[in-house]
Amino acid sequence: MDFPVDQMTERDWQTAEDPGTVRFAMVGLGWWTRAEAVPAVEESDFCETTVLVSGSKEKARAGKDLAGSIEHGITYEEFHDGVAADAFDAVYVCTPNALHLPFVETAARLDKDVLCEKPMEATVARAREIVELASAHDIEVMVAYRMQTEPVVRRARELVREGVIGDPVLVHGNMSQRLLDIIPDPDQWRLDPDTSGGATVMDMGVYPINTTRFLLDSDPTAVQARTAHEQAAFADVGDEHAAFTLEFPDGVYAACTASQNAYKSSHLRVTGTEGEIAIDPAFFNEKDRGFRVSVADEHWEVGFEQLDQMTEEFDYFAHALLTGRPVCADAEHGFVDMCVLESIYEAADSGETVDVSGL
Amino acid sequence: MDFPVDQMTERDWQTAEDPGTVRFAMVGLGWWTRAEAVPAVEESDFCETTVLVSGSKEKARAGKDLAGSIEHGITYEEFHDGVAADAFDAVYVCTPNALHLPFVETAARLDKDVLCEKPMEATVARAREIVELASAHDIEVMVAYRMQTEPVVRRARELVREGVIGDPVLVHGNMSQRLLDIIPDPDQWRLDPDTSGGATVMDMGVYPINTTRFLLDSDPTAVQARTAHEQAAFADVGDEHAAFTLEFPDGVYAACTASQNAYKSSHLRVTGTEGEIAIDPAFFNEKDRGFRVSVADEHWEVGFEQLDQMTEEFDYFAHALLTGRPVCADAEHGFVDMCVLESIYEAADSGETVDVSGL
Repeated sequence: MDFPVDQMTERDWQTAEDPGTVRFAMVGLGWWTRAEAVPAVEESDFCETTVLVSGSKEKARAGKDLAGSIEHGITYEEFHDGVAADAFDAVYVCTPNALHLPFVETAARLDKDVLCEKPMEATVARAREIVELASAHDIEVMVAYRMQTEPVVRRARELVREGVIGDPVLVHGNMSQRLLDIIPDPDQWRLDPDTSGGATVMDMGVYPINTTRFLLDSDPTAVQARTAHEQAAFADVGDEHAAFTLEFPDGVYAACTASQNAYKSSHLRVTGTEGEIAIDPAFFNEKDRGFRVSVADEHWEVGFEQLDQMTEEFDYFAHALLTGRPVCADAEHGFVDMCVLESIYEAADSGETVDVSGL
Repeated sequence: MDFPVDQMTERDWQTAEDPGTVRFAMVGLGWWTRAEAVPAVEESDFCETTVLVSGSKEKARAGKDLAGSIEHGITYEEFHDGVAADAFDAVYVCTPNALHLPFVETAARLDKDVLCEKPMEATVARAREIVELASAHDIEVMVAYRMQTEPVVRRARELVREGVIGDPVLVHGNMSQRLLDIIPDPDQWRLDPDTSGGATVMDMGVYPINTTRFLLDSDPTAVQARTAHEQAAFADVGDEHAAFTLEFPDGVYAACTASQNAYKSSHLRVTGTEGEIAIDPAFFNEKDRGFRVSVADEHWEVGFEQLDQMTEEFDYFAHALLTGRPVCADAEHGFVDMCVLESIYEAADSGETVDVSGL
């Protein structure tokens, strides 16, 4: 088998050499925006951060040191009032889940495209409103699945598409971390069901769900699930740990787990009729990346230097906007995940299989 | 961390240097007995094959070339009639699943101990009869879970027990192969539900189920499952592919898959609060073996030369008999798996979670 490893990090989606620049308003100045998104945009080819939007005026102002391109630090209220609207072309929404909708609403009203963090919102009903806003205002809303613009996953997907492992049969996926070690606050928003929609399935489970959909180019038809919690901090959300099975057409199963209180680990493995692709580590963004392909008695370990996943994502989104192409993980695509996520909670509550074939 | 790799293949169960020899009647002369079991006994320290038992007189006679120690080749009927009963001490039962019970019955009547292939029988009801026979006749019945005497799995279990990965949280397990490539006969017994009890869950699924029980030293409390088939040969059994979730106490989940029509692959991974152990390949017996342990940011790849799994299993069983110790995977232990296996089919049929906490 021929793996052109030197081409692994090529941007297969890039058609224009110098399409221009998209100026971003970054909404929500939590650690992810400050430590990942803004620095990623600094390294990007087609993006710059011009506006920071925070619940706190001080935080918005202090954040201006993050990049020389930042012109304005404004509050949520100011953003909704249209302050500095001429200074940005698109909005990156990285707030708690249940705050995504109002910012997409304002962005739509201002005719700005949106890169919206995953999961889209805290409920299916609110996610549906985002889909409708995108359509009614004719704006692009891309859901920020950084795995979909990540070279390892894209190359793995090519191999699946080319039939290298035959027809996919089984998938295994896990994402786990210790949330309370990372953010030692039992009152954080991810543990408040009204704000997050759920702790583990929503935040971690969405990775194996969406990445499996992307790799298989297929959507689930049924789900089974179990959730459990031990620590008091997880009592309100209920899902400290989760296990769920996704059924795809033709009897393809994805056996998935997720935890906010287990060793930091992630893997994704697709076993087909003729071979297997294993991505390990799969979903975190700071590790060396690669995958293993097995066909017959042969195994290939394919590894290469990690790119900044957020830079890839931002540049992909900006390039699509600048060249007038539809974004790949659009709102309707993200809406399917919201329905699957909500069905997983429903299946865990009832103990019964939930049909999602109507998605 | 200190891994005494040179001691990895030590028999931690062995207490006697030269406890003697157990003479075996090998019942069922399919390829596994001829290509694996008899050669493994030839290499063993405490076992020899003295009697072969087959449905066909010719096969029983012809098989005598397999080992110099073989004294008798007899038919199933002759075995049940007690022919050559003085020439063996114990019986290895390696017939189709639904034939295990009558051979255990005869062995019990003849006061012979039994090493019975997994799964114990084709149904829970028949497995229960084996448990009762073992008890009533005071014979040892060990279920042939070769993973339980396999050095990689035993060392991994020690690490789990020592708390190296913290408390177990999540398990992933798969076993898959292409049955009709291995045995290209759509009328084979594994595809007849009356003889096998099921194709994939019974034959492959039992590996992640039992090995997870062994590694965690814990039994499932609930199961969820899906099964599917595409090929006509699997229409009667229904389970060409299967996905099932086992719930263990304290919200520990095992996400498992199995297939008789997918790339040959097997893996088992236990993720704990503090680390992870991944065994890959896990369940087949002809590959290089090892495991990976991850704790904090450290990863250790532990590999060593493969032993003959069947030799280990036969010697363990014989050593237990000769030293008067109870066997580890006894009939009651195997009976739990039978209940789990049957519950998986029930859960797949109903789409509902099946409680197995009463096991």
